[in-house]
Amino acid sequence: MPVVKGPQVFPRSEYLRRLTAANARMAERDIAALVITDNAHVTYLTGSVAHSYDTRAVVVLASREEPVFILRWMDVAAAVQETFMERDSVVGYSEELMGDPEKNGYDAVIDFLLEQGLGQSGIGLELCNLTVDSVQKFKSRLPQSRIEDFSNVVTRIRAIKSDLEIAVMREAAAISDAGVLRAAEVMRSGMREADAIAEIVGTLARGANGKPGTWIATPFLCATSRIGNPHTTWSEDTLREGSQVNLEIAGVRHDYHVPICRTYSLGTPSDRLLRIHEAQLAGLEAGLNIIHAGAVSGEVAKIIHSTTEKHGFKKQSRAGYSIGINWMEKTTSLKLGDTTVLEPNMTFHLHLGSWVQEDFGYVLSESIRVTESGVEVLTKAPRQLFTLG
Amino acid sequence: MPVVKGPQVFPRSEYLRRLTAANARMAERDIAALVITDNAHVTYLTGSVAHSYDTRAVVVLASREEPVFILRWMDVAAAVQETFMERDSVVGYSEELMGDPEKNGYDAVIDFLLEQGLGQSGIGLELCNLTVDSVQKFKSRLPQSRIEDFSNVVTRIRAIKSDLEIAVMREAAAISDAGVLRAAEVMRSGMREADAIAEIVGTLARGANGKPGTWIATPFLCATSRIGNPHTTWSEDTLREGSQVNLEIAGVRHDYHVPICRTYSLGTPSDRLLRIHEAQLAGLEAGLNIIHAGAVSGEVAKIIHSTTEKHGFKKQSRAGYSIGINWMEKTTSLKLGDTTVLEPNMTFHLHLGSWVQEDFGYVLSESIRVTESGVEVLTKAPRQLFTLG
Repeated sequence: MPVVKGPQVFPRSEYLRRLTAANARMAERDIAALVITDNAHVTYLTGSVAHSYDTRAVVVLASREEPVFILRWMDVAAAVQETFMERDSVVGYSEELMGDPEKNGYDAVIDFLLEQGLGQSGIGLELCNLTVDSVQKFKSRLPQSRIEDFSNVVTRIRAIKSDLEIAVMREAAAISDAGVLRAAEVMRSGMREADAIAEIVGTLARGANGKPGTWIATPFLCATSRIGNPHTTWSEDTLREGSQVNLEIAGVRHDYHVPICRTYSLGTPSDRLLRIHEAQLAGLEAGLNIIHAGAVSGEVAKIIHSTTEKHGFKKQSRAGYSIGINWMEKTTSLKLGDTTVLEPNMTFHLHLGSWVQEDFGYVLSESIRVTESGVEVLTKAPRQLFTLG
Repeated sequence: MPVVKGPQVFPRSEYLRRLTAANARMAERDIAALVITDNAHVTYLTGSVAHSYDTRAVVVLASREEPVFILRWMDVAAAVQETFMERDSVVGYSEELMGDPEKNGYDAVIDFLLEQGLGQSGIGLELCNLTVDSVQKFKSRLPQSRIEDFSNVVTRIRAIKSDLEIAVMREAAAISDAGVLRAAEVMRSGMREADAIAEIVGTLARGANGKPGTWIATPFLCATSRIGNPHTTWSEDTLREGSQVNLEIAGVRHDYHVPICRTYSLGTPSDRLLRIHEAQLAGLEAGLNIIHAGAVSGEVAKIIHSTTEKHGFKKQSRAGYSIGINWMEKTTSLKLGDTTVLEPNMTFHLHLGSWVQEDFGYVLSESIRVTESGVEVLTKAPRQLFTLG
């Protein structure tokens, strides 16, 4: 039997809003079809969160309200259930294209464009996601088309969230908070790091306030000899009296990731640990104090850097980045010199983390939303260095 | 203080074996430097399993025993700890390259190649992982170099595992088995799917036989209205009497993923469910019976397809794929017409999964190793349709 629609996260009007914005960019450049290949953009424009291990693309047509989702036949049922679109907007391609050295799903996309009579039109591609071979395939099979790069177009639309998206991000933030508190509850001397992770990822799945997590973003848990690393997972070690744990996790709802970092000390923290906590806390609060619609990204970074430096710790990395679908959005960084003017409903991971020596670092962060007058802190776990018994 | 090496998964000789194989391919094509950008290949050649959200590359030089790992400065400590290489083989690039519209980590790689005097040499790139812009950067900054595509070179070396790798994959397989059994233990009518997932991912973290999981591969749990989907995760629903659950998970050790699929019935299974289980079981066993070094991939697929078809179910998708680092290796598919001759210590996910209608599918699989005389089944969970009370 054919499948029917599953529950929808957003109403149709939300997707049409996003598509209208994409269509406006297409109209400016006389583009008849925009071929979306970035996975986060596919999710953004359709509602699909299922995975597909093969070529898939969403084609936004200037002439059609709904986009057309082209993917491997076995993933069609999930696309019909998850997306806001009618069944005839989902097109499966044959299994024969799997593992064929000459042909792949992009041939199905190009076939579709040709069937639509778009062989001489403007075609937008996300070149930042396409390999040389794929781009060559589009150029050679569409020799009369004018191909334009739309790499950063949907990313920029995504940067400003609707209130509906913010509501989902608040749900994800509550899961992040639950994960931070669960870590504080269970981490004790003598426990394997992996057993702590089991409790944390269990919490990320169970969720908060009756809203389960919908994906497991594997946590970074950097303890003791690895606290100078930002991006390693747990080890096979056991936590000990005196261990420090830098934890970075994200609750996920419908692919919206809301990250948070907290640091834990098993036993009395060292003086250096207390001082770097104070420095990062001061920097974080200074940043929160000046963020508002109209503030400039680089200026926010500047006050964060100068505040932590006043407290004796120089922060080398950027002070945050745009968040949304898939943890990190490649739009605005809160970094020195960045001239982006903040707008309401931009969302950031404000990340004070600092790896000051190869064997020492500290993490503290919040996920936030820019408001007209200031900031909403989405994550609400206690902003402290957790000292565990 | 500078960090020191952490525990090593493989001895230096194992990495040198892999590099020797890469060097042989380089010598055949007179390549002085091979620039590795595929994440799985980076792991394979160095031992690094940390993540880095920015450009990183491993440069294999014809003139040097150890490769050179070039990555963002903040990820250097992790690289020093995790990889088999000496400290001077790890090179960090400046934070200033982050978010720079003109420059990125590939500029650091090209600078390195020029410093090594390789501006007029043969350079191997993995074009399948590089965007048009990145390739253009290499070409324009190395105009005298002869650039050759090494896209599938390391993948093919990876396809045949050493006994050391097989030992790690057995550890991962035991975790997969534990996940399957935990699911059978906890899934009951009235339980939210997310709560079942919490137990399963907890098990994937805790591991088996004292060996923790080292990464959480988010499971696919497709229940009831979504059992026609291969690649969706759990929903916000609650399991009910009569629910069917198709579960696909993978235990992970040091990035080696060993997948397994099992299906569960809450309450008495339907006749159709019993019949498709019998069909897939017969197909799986027929495949296992003919796999051995020297067998041809497409012939294995053929017997699997014909056996399930004899039992009344036509399998449309391929019968398996090569596994190793990162779940799926893009080398051999067990698919009709594939002419690959199987070799000892090739490893596959032998996947009988079949989505016969949009609202009905069934999954059963094993991860296996090809041996001289036959096959070693790595996953050992009961090969049954689990009927849960």
